Amino acid sequence: MMDDVLTYLEEHYERHLEDLRTFVRIPSVSTEGQHAPDVRRAAEWVAARLSSAGLTDARVTDTPGHPVVTASWTNHPGAPTILVYGHYDVQPPDPLERWDSPPFEATERDGNMYARGVSDDKAPMLIPIRVTEAFLQARGALPINVKFLFEGEEEIGSPNLGAFVRDHAQQLQADFVLSADGGMWRADVPTLTVSARGLVALEFTVRGPGKDLHSGRHGGSLHNPLHAISRMVASLHGPDGRVSVEGFYDDVVPVSPAIRADTAALPFNDEAYLREVGAPATFGEPGYSTLERQWYRPTLELNGLWGGYTGEGAKTVLPSEAHAKITCRLVPGQDPDRIRERIEAHLRQHAPPGVTVTFEESRHGAPAYRIPPEHVGLRVAREAIRSVYGQDPLMVGMGGSIPICDTFRDALDMDTVFFSFAVGDENIHAPNEFFRLARFQEGARAWTAYFEALARSVDAVVTATR
Amino acid sequence: MMDDVLTYLEEHYERHLEDLRTFVRIPSVSTEGQHAPDVRRAAEWVAARLSSAGLTDARVTDTPGHPVVTASWTNHPGAPTILVYGHYDVQPPDPLERWDSPPFEATERDGNMYARGVSDDKAPMLIPIRVTEAFLQARGALPINVKFLFEGEEEIGSPNLGAFVRDHAQQLQADFVLSADGGMWRADVPTLTVSARGLVALEFTVRGPGKDLHSGRHGGSLHNPLHAISRMVASLHGPDGRVSVEGFYDDVVPVSPAIRADTAALPFNDEAYLREVGAPATFGEPGYSTLERQWYRPTLELNGLWGGYTGEGAKTVLPSEAHAKITCRLVPGQDPDRIRERIEAHLRQHAPPGVTVTFEESRHGAPAYRIPPEHVGLRVAREAIRSVYGQDPLMVGMGGSIPICDTFRDALDMDTVFFSFAVGDENIHAPNEFFRLARFQEGARAWTAYFEALARSVDAVVTATR
Repeated sequence: MMDDVLTYLEEHYERHLEDLRTFVRIPSVSTEGQHAPDVRRAAEWVAARLSSAGLTDARVTDTPGHPVVTASWTNHPGAPTILVYGHYDVQPPDPLERWDSPPFEATERDGNMYARGVSDDKAPMLIPIRVTEAFLQARGALPINVKFLFEGEEEIGSPNLGAFVRDHAQQLQADFVLSADGGMWRADVPTLTVSARGLVALEFTVRGPGKDLHSGRHGGSLHNPLHAISRMVASLHGPDGRVSVEGFYDDVVPVSPAIRADTAALPFNDEAYLREVGAPATFGEPGYSTLERQWYRPTLELNGLWGGYTGEGAKTVLPSEAHAKITCRLVPGQDPDRIRERIEAHLRQHAPPGVTVTFEESRHGAPAYRIPPEHVGLRVAREAIRSVYGQDPLMVGMGGSIPICDTFRDALDMDTVFFSFAVGDENIHAPNEFFRLARFQEGARAWTAYFEALARSVDAVVTATR
Repeated sequence: MMDDVLTYLEEHYERHLEDLRTFVRIPSVSTEGQHAPDVRRAAEWVAARLSSAGLTDARVTDTPGHPVVTASWTNHPGAPTILVYGHYDVQPPDPLERWDSPPFEATERDGNMYARGVSDDKAPMLIPIRVTEAFLQARGALPINVKFLFEGEEEIGSPNLGAFVRDHAQQLQADFVLSADGGMWRADVPTLTVSARGLVALEFTVRGPGKDLHSGRHGGSLHNPLHAISRMVASLHGPDGRVSVEGFYDDVVPVSPAIRADTAALPFNDEAYLREVGAPATFGEPGYSTLERQWYRPTLELNGLWGGYTGEGAKTVLPSEAHAKITCRLVPGQDPDRIRERIEAHLRQHAPPGVTVTFEESRHGAPAYRIPPEHVGLRVAREAIRSVYGQDPLMVGMGGSIPICDTFRDALDMDTVFFSFAVGDENIHAPNEFFRLARFQEGARAWTAYFEALARSVDAVVTATR
C-alpha cells in the first residue's frame, strides 16, 4: 500500500538531495548575531520547501528572536494528529581550521555529506517534508493529520518557542509531538530515545586589576584572575570526577534498577568507545558505567575557559579578567534554576581575595524529559523502525537536551517521541559534522511507515491521548 | 659647556618628535610572524636615523630571526667607551578593542604620546641617538666613545642576540653597557634600577579526546581537558599565593636586610598602588611587602589560559584540548632551566588520568641580574639625573627582565647600567601604552650630562673596568 509513496521517494531522491545541499549551504548559526539574516533566509527556505511539498498554509512567523516556520495538513477529521518538530538553526562552525572541507558547502565523501548542521538537524527535519510531499503528490492525501513546527533557536535553548507555543496552542494542538531532532545512538543498531537530559548554562567573569598589567612588574603582588578562575573551577569537581557543588545531587531521582539492567545489556564497551573518541581513558562519577554517566547522571562541564594572551609566542601579561562558560546536564528531579543558584553560590564562595566574580544574565534552563515507556507513539515508532531495519529498536537514553519537550508537555500537554535518523557519532557540535546519506532514504521509508501505522492505531491514540 | 648641545636639542625638538611619530607607526611586533617585514622596516629606519645623526657606519645585520642595528663613534682613543643598548621591536597590541586610539598611530593627548612601543622602547632608545646627533652637529665630536646596539627580538627573549654579541665581541667591546631599556619606577621621583628579575617561559597543552565532542552526549564520562588544566594550574600555588612547585625556592639567595630596609623606606603604599592598578586587594607570597614581591621574590604567573568555545553565546562542547602559557620571574640563585624542569615535572605529576600533557619546545630563559652598587656607570648616572631633576635618584629593583644583561656579562664581561626615561606606569605590554613627552627632553638633557660626566670620570672607568 505504501509502494506509490516509496516509488515517488526513489524517483525524486536526486532532487531532494539537491534540496539538502541548498539547505546546508545557508549558515544559519543562531548563536551569533551576525548570522541573523542567514537564519531568516533558512526559515524562508523551509517555508518555501513546505509549500512546494503541497502544503498551502506554510508561513514564517517572527518572534523576538529568530522566526518559527509552520504548516499543516489536517483534512482527516478524527484521524490521529501529530506535530512534527525540528530546527533549522545550527551550531557555530568553530574551530574552523579543524574542518577538512568548508562547513557551509555540501561536501560528499564515502556516502556521507559533510556540513555544519547536516546531521543536527537539517537532513533529519527534511525527511518528514519529503514524505509529506510524496503522499500528497503520489496519493493526494496523507493518512493522518500532520502539523509542522520548525524553530530557529534550538541551539540557543529555544528562548522564544515557549511563548510561541503557548500563543498558538490551538493551532499546534495534536495527539503528540514527533520530533525529527534527537538522533539514533549508533549506526549499527536501531534505537529509540526515551529520555533526554535537562540543561542549565552559566557564564562568568573573574576580574582582578582594572587593566592588563605587565606580569614582570606586577606579577606576584596581585591576584592573577587566571589563577583565581583556575582555582574556582577546579573546586567544582572532586578529584574523582564527582561534582563538589553542595546540594548538586540532592534532588536527583535515582536511576531504576530496571533501567540500569537494560543499559548494561546494550552492546557497548569502553575500549571501543575510547577508540571512537580518541581519548586515553574514561573518567567520571564513581559507581556508574559510561552509558549511565552519559544518559542518567547529571554533569557539570566547562565548555570554554579563557583569559590573557592566547596568540603566538609569549606575552608577559597579568590579565585584568578571565572567563568561563559552563553547562550542566540535568536528570529528573533537578530544577535548573536551583542548580544554577547552587553553582553561583559555590563559585562566589570560592572566589579568592583580590578578585571579583560576576555572572552573565541567566540564559536558558530546561529540566530533564522522560516519555512513558508504553506511549502509543513509541509503539508505532518501534513498528516503523522494524519495517525498515528488520529488527526491534533498543530503548536508550540521550545525553543531550531538547528543552522544548518540557514546553510541549507544560503548554500543550503533549508527549514527545524522538524519531530522528541522525546518528550520535556524526560530529554534531564539532568539526566535520556529517550525515549518512543512506539514512536520507531509510528515514523517509520509516516516516512513511510511521504515518501508515499511526493511521491504523487511531483507537489506541484516542484512548491514550484524548 | 653643554649649552651648545642643549640648544641644538631644543631647536630640533619638533623634528625629533616627528621622527618618534614615524618610528611608532611601524608595527614592529616581533612575536608575530606576519609582522616580520615591519620589524625589518623598523630596523632600516633606525639605521637610517643613526646615519642622519652623523654616524657613518650604521648598518642592519641579519640574524636567523630579526635583524640587529649597529653604529659607532670611537674617535677618542683612551676615553671611556659605552655600548648603548635598546630595542626597536614591540609587544603585540592585543586586546585591540581596549585601546582608546589605534596602537600604531602616534596620538598625543595631555602631554603624552599613545602608541604600542612608544615607552617600551622606541622613545627611550631614540634619546641617545638625538643626543649623539646634537653633539656631532653642534660640536663636531662626542666627549666619549659610543657604540650602538639595537635589537629586534627583546620582546621574544633575544634568542639571536647572544650569538650576535659573541660573534661581534671585538666590535662591541666597551667599558660597560648603558641601556636605554628599563624605565623609571615612578614619574614623581627619579630612580635608578640596580637589578632585574630573570625569566623562564613555558607553554603546554592538555589533550583529552581526539576531537571536540558534544558535551551533552559525552559530558561526565571523559576527562574534560578544561577541568584537567584548571586543576593542574591551580596546583601551582597554595591558597596563600606561595608557589607550590617542589624546590622552586630552594636556590633563592635571600633578600638582604639592607635592601629590605631601603625598599621599606621608599614612598609607596598599597592603597595608592591599588588605586593605580584598579585591583581590590594585594595578594602574594606571605612575609613580603608588595615591592619586595615585585622586585626581589620569584613569581610564577599564568599569562594565558584557553580552550573550548570562547565566542558569543553558548556552545555545548567538550573540547579536545586546553592550553596555558606561564612565565616565571627569577631572582639571583635560580637557574632558568632547572626551574623549568621543576615546573614541567610538577605539571606532569598533577596531570589527572584521562588526559596527556605536552610542552612546547623550550623558549628563552634568563637568570636574574644585579649590578654592583658602587659601579662607576651607576655613579655617573646618579650625577646626570641629579643635574636634570635636582635630586638624587633612589635605587630600586625591577620586576621585569632584560635577559641580554646576562649575555653582556657572560660574553663581553660588561655590566649594564639602566638609564631609561620611560616610567613604569606607562601601560607597557597593555592597551593604551604611552610615553610622557616631557621626558623626551629631560632624557636628552640627562644623556647629554651623562656623556659629559663620564668623560670626566675616565680614571675611575679605567680603574674599574679595564
